[in-house]
Amino acid sequence: MPAFKLVTDMPAAGVDDPIRNGVDTATLFATLDAVKQAPEAAKFQFRAHNQWQSGTHNRSTIGDYFGVGEERTHERTFVFDADHPAVLVGTDQGPTPVEFMLHALAACLTAGLANIAAARKVKLTEVRSTVTGDIDLNGILGLDADVRNGYQQITVRFAIKGDAPAEKLGELLEQSRARSAVYDVITNGVPVTVEVDTP
Amino acid sequence: MPAFKLVTDMPAAGVDDPIRNGVDTATLFATLDAVKQAPEAAKFQFRAHNQWQSGTHNRSTIGDYFGVGEERTHERTFVFDADHPAVLVGTDQGPTPVEFMLHALAACLTAGLANIAAARKVKLTEVRSTVTGDIDLNGILGLDADVRNGYQQITVRFAIKGDAPAEKLGELLEQSRARSAVYDVITNGVPVTVEVDTP
Repeated sequence: MPAFKLVTDMPAAGVDDPIRNGVDTATLFATLDAVKQAPEAAKFQFRAHNQWQSGTHNRSTIGDYFGVGEERTHERTFVFDADHPAVLVGTDQGPTPVEFMLHALAACLTAGLANIAAARKVKLTEVRSTVTGDIDLNGILGLDADVRNGYQQITVRFAIKGDAPAEKLGELLEQSRARSAVYDVITNGVPVTVEVDTP
Repeated sequence: MPAFKLVTDMPAAGVDDPIRNGVDTATLFATLDAVKQAPEAAKFQFRAHNQWQSGTHNRSTIGDYFGVGEERTHERTFVFDADHPAVLVGTDQGPTPVEFMLHALAACLTAGLANIAAARKVKLTEVRSTVTGDIDLNGILGLDADVRNGYQQITVRFAIKGDAPAEKLGELLEQSRARSAVYDVITNGVPVTVEVDTP
């Protein structure tokens, strides 16, 4: 169970045990130092490869990426289906594309929170969140020119428990928000180029 | 195999067969008409529920949503893990949060393309896409104040085959882009509220 190797209690470890919240803070700080010395190492390219299945059902594979100067692969290739539910004329083989965005936002804020808490010596015991996104489909259906296609508002509600006062836990979350890649993309937008090869 | 029920050849169907690309165009147009009559039906709220596991590893469940005037659930609850790879001090139990955004974008453009092609009587035979996102992690690492946290540029490359000329296939993709919820969110941004309950 590789996921849990870092949270195993280490009775031999001293008071300055670098493993906290499952985060190897020694490696985290070493990584920061390494990137300070070689900023080019931090240039990454992530990728998803999608194949249409039928109707609104399609499937992405996520495996290869570039980072720290070379082509890399995840330990396994991840596969995800997306679809629309029947009420949106799909077959419900997976979440809708817009639901995956909500997962991405929760995941990014939560990962950042765990890292930042570890770096600041706060032990977390529970982190839960619910992300809601309000959308009026009159936009994508082309029925109302005044309605945008995407979400009108997204709200993230966290419940956080740990060995620090509520105010401190709130500060950790605020720092995670301030350094979140997904939060930045969703709130500020990113240029997207769409190209097509039609042989 | 419910996913494929709509693409089964229907020898008894007439020349105006409403099933095309796995899209039930009769239901699609009926849904459009229904929303025209009752615009409130198009107000949806999508949700993801996330629970921290350890370190950068966390897990979302996607099941409940609101739409067409009532609380609804997907046919099953979908579960997704996110994590960082070892090179980013994680345990690679799932894609990174930013990779899920690329999947969402490909999925949204592809689902829209299939619907629009069906509505315009174009039969698609193959749709593949690769989405790439360039990101400089000096931003989220806090090492360079001039570098943003999120992607700097996202590129989507489609390969589309069907029974229409290349120009027409390109027009269908352009219409999908113009009506994509995820494309809108990623290019234009959405307000996000982050709240915390720290008992």
